[in-house]
Amino acid sequence: MKNYRKELTMNTRQRYQLIRITDQVQQALADSGIQEGLCLVNSMHITSSVFINDNESGLHADFLEWLEKLAPYSRSGYRHNVGEDNGDAHLKRQIMGREVVVAVSGGQLDFGPWEQIFYGEFDGCRSKRILIKIIGE
Amino acid sequence: MKNYRKELTMNTRQRYQLIRITDQVQQALADSGIQEGLCLVNSMHITSSVFINDNESGLHADFLEWLEKLAPYSRSGYRHNVGEDNGDAHLKRQIMGREVVVAVSGGQLDFGPWEQIFYGEFDGCRSKRILIKIIGE
Amino acid sequence: MKNYRKELTMNTRQRYQLIRITDQVQQALADSGIQEGLCLVNSMHITSSVFINDNESGLHADFLEWLEKLAPYSRSGYRHNVGEDNGDAHLKRQIMGREVVVAVSGGQLDFGPWEQIFYGEFDGCRSKRILIKIIGE
Repeated sequence: MKNYRKELTMNTRQRYQLIRITDQVQQALADSGIQEGLCLVNSMHITSSVFINDNESGLHADFLEWLEKLAPYSRSGYRHNVGEDNGDAHLKRQIMGREVVVAVSGGQLDFGPWEQIFYGEFDGCRSKRILIKIIGE
Repeated sequence: MKNYRKELTMNTRQRYQLIRITDQVQQALADSGIQEGLCLVNSMHITSSVFINDNESGLHADFLEWLEKLAPYSRSGYRHNVGEDNGDAHLKRQIMGREVVVAVSGGQLDFGPWEQIFYGEFDGCRSKRILIKIIGE
Repeated sequence: MKNYRKELTMNTRQRYQLIRITDQVQQALADSGIQEGLCLVNSMHITSSVFINDNESGLHADFLEWLEKLAPYSRSGYRHNVGEDNGDAHLKRQIMGREVVVAVSGGQLDFGPWEQIFYGEFDGCRSKRILIKIIGE
């Protein structure tokens, strides 16, 4: 069994931002030399997400507006916000998810036609990390 | 390490529909000959889900009504809906999830007593695919 | 390839409760002897979750309040509640998720600084199980 590990570092310019990372994950898979297996991609932080959906800017604006409706930012509205103001980000991340597991087949990310991997930042403007772990042969 | 890959093709008669797929995944596992490992089951599309919950028709009606409340269908209410009307489906899929990872133990899906795998379609009436990828030995 | 399987039994004193299980998962990993691989942790029940977020009691109160808002308890408001009253728990579990997959690197759970694993119970006061399955080498 082979295994491969890589971290990506993200530093968003906005507090809330969705960033496509498919190419970096594909590069990691190529570097791993793994042909058949599973590829885990997860946020190493608890106020951001890794998820798979469509690479369409209108949808991304819809996502952020929708998340704000389901789990609104509030300076004083969360018990978590004692010396912090990111309570909403911990909730938003649960909707969008921590991780994706992608099949690796024939040395490729085994995707449907529109699947793209995104990093979802909900408490940004600082350095954060994504973990890629691939196992297989 | 063994690995096995199979696609299922889904073609729902309704726009929104939840379909049990446990038996097809069990058959894929039997075909794979894998005794111990992990089984990934994911939608290859971005307006549908694979999830694990209860096989109970009342709950399924509750799920669809609840998702409609959290992420309502709207022809014109989403920026994504330029020449499309499935913005709600991209959101609904995030609530229900893209994928499940199931333990394989003793050649069986290692499930609790009520766990069943479902495909959740939120933009149906056309051909879509589910990916099953199993690794182990 | 090595593989390891363990069940944890949970018996919450409250109907809704979030419980940290990182230490038990770390112990299982140590017992497995696996150095590099993937660790799946999932609820074996369909009214509870396993998720990764922050170990902070204020946030946990926020989570339960938020879930109650998105998927409120209702004795008669769910079609599922025929002889049961846990319809809300099946919905809450979808928001928080069934499972996490954690990278194993150098014999450790490969976590960012704040990541902790939790069991989320939404229909408690009875015995339930969590499955840990680790594969690797």
